[in-house]
Amino acid sequence: MRRIAVCAPGKRLERERADAVLDIVAGRPDVELIFHRQCFARHGHFAGDDQTRLAALLECANDPDVDAVWFAMGGYGANRIAADAIAGMTQSARSKPFLGYSDTGYLLAALYRAGIGQAVHAPLAGDIRRDGGADAIHRVLDWLGGSDSGLEPSLDNRPTAAFNLTTLAMLAGTDLMPDLAGHVIMVEEVAEHLYAVDRLFFHITQHLPDIAGLRLGRISEIPENDRPFGSGPDDIARYWCSRTGIPYLGHADIGHDPGNRIVPFGLARRALTA
Amino acid sequence: MRRIAVCAPGKRLERERADAVLDIVAGRPDVELIFHRQCFARHGHFAGDDQTRLAALLECANDPDVDAVWFAMGGYGANRIAADAIAGMTQSARSKPFLGYSDTGYLLAALYRAGIGQAVHAPLAGDIRRDGGADAIHRVLDWLGGSDSGLEPSLDNRPTAAFNLTTLAMLAGTDLMPDLAGHVIMVEEVAEHLYAVDRLFFHITQHLPDIAGLRLGRISEIPENDRPFGSGPDDIARYWCSRTGIPYLGHADIGHDPGNRIVPFGLARRALTA
Repeated sequence: MRRIAVCAPGKRLERERADAVLDIVAGRPDVELIFHRQCFARHGHFAGDDQTRLAALLECANDPDVDAVWFAMGGYGANRIAADAIAGMTQSARSKPFLGYSDTGYLLAALYRAGIGQAVHAPLAGDIRRDGGADAIHRVLDWLGGSDSGLEPSLDNRPTAAFNLTTLAMLAGTDLMPDLAGHVIMVEEVAEHLYAVDRLFFHITQHLPDIAGLRLGRISEIPENDRPFGSGPDDIARYWCSRTGIPYLGHADIGHDPGNRIVPFGLARRALTA
Repeated sequence: MRRIAVCAPGKRLERERADAVLDIVAGRPDVELIFHRQCFARHGHFAGDDQTRLAALLECANDPDVDAVWFAMGGYGANRIAADAIAGMTQSARSKPFLGYSDTGYLLAALYRAGIGQAVHAPLAGDIRRDGGADAIHRVLDWLGGSDSGLEPSLDNRPTAAFNLTTLAMLAGTDLMPDLAGHVIMVEEVAEHLYAVDRLFFHITQHLPDIAGLRLGRISEIPENDRPFGSGPDDIARYWCSRTGIPYLGHADIGHDPGNRIVPFGLARRALTA
């Protein structure tokens, strides 16, 4: 039985979503899931103030009886606590996977940079709210159980990392940013205008000159603008990669949707050996 | 008589706005204003494709009979042509001011980095569309005529630069970014959620550890979110400055509005001696 602790470094989780995930887990004898009460806290934009979110994350990370830390929601806020979280992690944190995406990418980056645990770009517990969300939940639980079936299919023998595009752009050059030289980098985005996507690619491609290549996940829910941008996400990725000499490697099967596949950071293909 | 050339490195200008500015200039015998035809070009999101916008900017910048280059509109797109623009500028460009703000900040930054001309954060010709826009137009023309009355009032004996917050965040770490050590940096933003403002401050404060201090311009037209952020722009600026050891210097009289005052980059207080 694997014990998985869930906390919310940014946005709070609705109780009914936690309940829906617990219903799924009830049918799986291989997993015990513990939602930290902090998941349901409120403080303005956040699931509790910085101190509350930090303390909950450290409780989950440093508990020797917890096998994995799963993030409940993205939102915004993980960057505010990431440096302190790394500083507060103990030996118990070093052997476990941390799973999430979107805004929790700040933590994945910081963990990967610090060499603590295993950062894994994967569905959030809160993805249960999406149509097909149960599949996303099972994908994470299956992977934690040792299955490779949910892995992003293009993963190869090169180290890899995956990010929300805005998150990666905001990480670039900060003290949370890992060295991504030689990595395949996958990016996805949601609800951003194409001009903003273009702008973000300008920024990240300048910051990642020595990566092995870039793959484009889904750029979804693009808002309609007052005028068409004139080119699509593929053209944008290709253009900026070409300008900066980064190999453009095609698509990645990640995105803000229930199909979001699993990308363990680095070279690891599986988190837990049985 | 000063000859001012206007071009549009990002978004196109509506003809009626150019006409309204020309009406103002008609009453000022000190100024001749030339709108480059490129201002009115269309190419998807942009005022003409990259090559068209670049060529127009270089025509204006390199024309020895032009005393100043004034940007028509912000929008998005100046970053795509800025590096080539710098590479294409000749001796004639080196003595003239370039005026604008918002997205044209990519060009101001690149010019300042290259030591070409004088970068000036100032109203755009297209600001005529705003209530009180005529005042903004006169402010630019008066400054070009030698008046100090439109300068941002906090300017002191420290080198200064002003930026749109998103533009500065996207510039940080790129090959367009000038060395801003020892500078007072002013930032303004429009139409961004407070969580995005917080995220941008996280990014820029990490990239600007050695500036003399930061001043906050207006953060306007903040969209309503599904939940309140919990703190305001001042708190956000103060928080991130405090975290990164940057002196927070208070407000700056700049913003996406007709009150936007003039900030010549560096130590210059006036662009043209009479």
